[in-house]
Amino acid sequence: MTSIREVAKIAGVSPSTVSRVMNGTAKVDEEKQQRVLAAIEQTGFKPNELARALFKKSSKMIGVIVPNIENPFFNEMAKAIEEEVFRGGYKMLLCNSNDDGEKELANIEMLSQMKADGIVIMTNCDSTGKAIANCEIPVVVVDRKVSGGGEIAYIESNHYEGGRIAMNHLLQCGCKNIVCMRAPQELSSGRKRYQGYQDVCKQYGIKEQFVDCKYSYDSGIEATKNILKEYPEADGIIACNDMVAAAVYKILHNEGLRVPEEIQIIGFDNIVFSRLFTPEFTTIEQPITDMGTLAARIIIEYVQGKPFQKENIFDVTLLKRQTTKVKE
Amino acid sequence: MTSIREVAKIAGVSPSTVSRVMNGTAKVDEEKQQRVLAAIEQTGFKPNELARALFKKSSKMIGVIVPNIENPFFNEMAKAIEEEVFRGGYKMLLCNSNDDGEKELANIEMLSQMKADGIVIMTNCDSTGKAIANCEIPVVVVDRKVSGGGEIAYIESNHYEGGRIAMNHLLQCGCKNIVCMRAPQELSSGRKRYQGYQDVCKQYGIKEQFVDCKYSYDSGIEATKNILKEYPEADGIIACNDMVAAAVYKILHNEGLRVPEEIQIIGFDNIVFSRLFTPEFTTIEQPITDMGTLAARIIIEYVQGKPFQKENIFDVTLLKRQTTKVKE
Repeated sequence: MTSIREVAKIAGVSPSTVSRVMNGTAKVDEEKQQRVLAAIEQTGFKPNELARALFKKSSKMIGVIVPNIENPFFNEMAKAIEEEVFRGGYKMLLCNSNDDGEKELANIEMLSQMKADGIVIMTNCDSTGKAIANCEIPVVVVDRKVSGGGEIAYIESNHYEGGRIAMNHLLQCGCKNIVCMRAPQELSSGRKRYQGYQDVCKQYGIKEQFVDCKYSYDSGIEATKNILKEYPEADGIIACNDMVAAAVYKILHNEGLRVPEEIQIIGFDNIVFSRLFTPEFTTIEQPITDMGTLAARIIIEYVQGKPFQKENIFDVTLLKRQTTKVKE
Repeated sequence: MTSIREVAKIAGVSPSTVSRVMNGTAKVDEEKQQRVLAAIEQTGFKPNELARALFKKSSKMIGVIVPNIENPFFNEMAKAIEEEVFRGGYKMLLCNSNDDGEKELANIEMLSQMKADGIVIMTNCDSTGKAIANCEIPVVVVDRKVSGGGEIAYIESNHYEGGRIAMNHLLQCGCKNIVCMRAPQELSSGRKRYQGYQDVCKQYGIKEQFVDCKYSYDSGIEATKNILKEYPEADGIIACNDMVAAAVYKILHNEGLRVPEEIQIIGFDNIVFSRLFTPEFTTIEQPITDMGTLAARIIIEYVQGKPFQKENIFDVTLLKRQTTKVKE
């Protein structure tokens, strides 16, 4: 492979002049510059990207840390980020923290060491906020806010409105006995959605009914069993996301309960699977692709010194499908 | 942040001695080495990983290229690879080619430039075989063989046996009119599975019946409509994977056909979703986690100069669930 020395020799300049031309770091005599460019073209020289990263303090890489690569919500987000990153001439380095706080810290440190241009993180660990605040490279937090405030921007959907819309929809579909699956209250997403649900309850003088549930399928299985025990009269369930809605449906179906005739379900996220399932899930759509695209854009804009917005709240949308009694 | 110079100063040695100790590239006097290690501990010095990569011609990164990050088969594979890679002290750089041959080439080139230690690729593009043969870093091909033979190893499951087992299972479940969804015949996986199906047909003197179908949900929707048109008597369908099985079920359900009473379905892969769906899909399990783990191991073993096996064929397993008439 051609080295920078060979290019310099052909152009009759020093290697550092070649480097200056390539990186635009200092003015180079016009005529010398032409000779260097001609030599680069002649030899087909490709700069060593690592050397360039070391020199420019940029690796043209953007790290993405997700808590669970098996939840399609995060994959769809990562896909959107990757596409925007690629369009911008960057590469995406995807890390799966497996909901392990220590692995998250290791990943953040690794990405800083690699001179990544930035990190997009989705985390369930509030303690990660400290690492974000101490991180040398810019961090964008997506989906769930963490304490610490060290991020350059955060992106989330309007979880509060989502909670309101879900509850209102089940009421409009005729449910008299709605149970809310309350997502972890230490997560901003869980807190806000539950507040939305609560406020609708207050508005109509309805008694709150909830079971606690994490954002995973397995947790959804356990929580649904708890609903059937604690609230045997339930005729509507607000699932904390679409993965959990799949678990709710599984248990209800096994118990011989008909959806939506006897009991209705609404999910959250609108992952692709929510419409591949049969029945298709009524859900609150988060604009996953738009959110991921913006996360990537913000890092690129930060690197380029362009302005961007720190707080980004996306609207959510009700998608009426087959697990609620939708009247056309 | 501490620099290598400061460490050297504290230890009373030259920076290159510090580097030799850290990288183990040359023998260093035992007493000096102790002083360097003490200075590293004292200062909390962390080597610049980029500089280290440049020096060692290794970035401690392994690239993974998948055709579609939205098919859980690839995510589950990537998850297994990432876990093994992390255990080995490496990082995973995940690239989504979106089934775009040019993006695959760009990713392979980028990973070579980044001095990745190796690439694990799953590809639908046979033309990528040429790029693999020309690639400067080791490539392991997973799931689908490509022509060219440039890979250091390939890993796949026994697709032929999978085709045989699927057909035999539907026959044992009493199907009289089985249609095989034939996956793309330019892919080794598609060819071998269809051969397995064909050989069972020959064995029992059954006439072959098939429709063509790609490995995606959308293609599954179209192919199922074709089955209902061309083979209205069908009572058993071999879907080309679990994503396609979900599409088959969706169409049959919409047509009012009961599964498995009137028509039975068997999938392929055993993605996590195949048991989250209701009904749970009978399927041919590929040992996705084992395959991903081995792919990562082989790259690490190659880097370490250890022996490994070039051809790796994993057994597949029939999982009897709710879309076939399983007799207990």
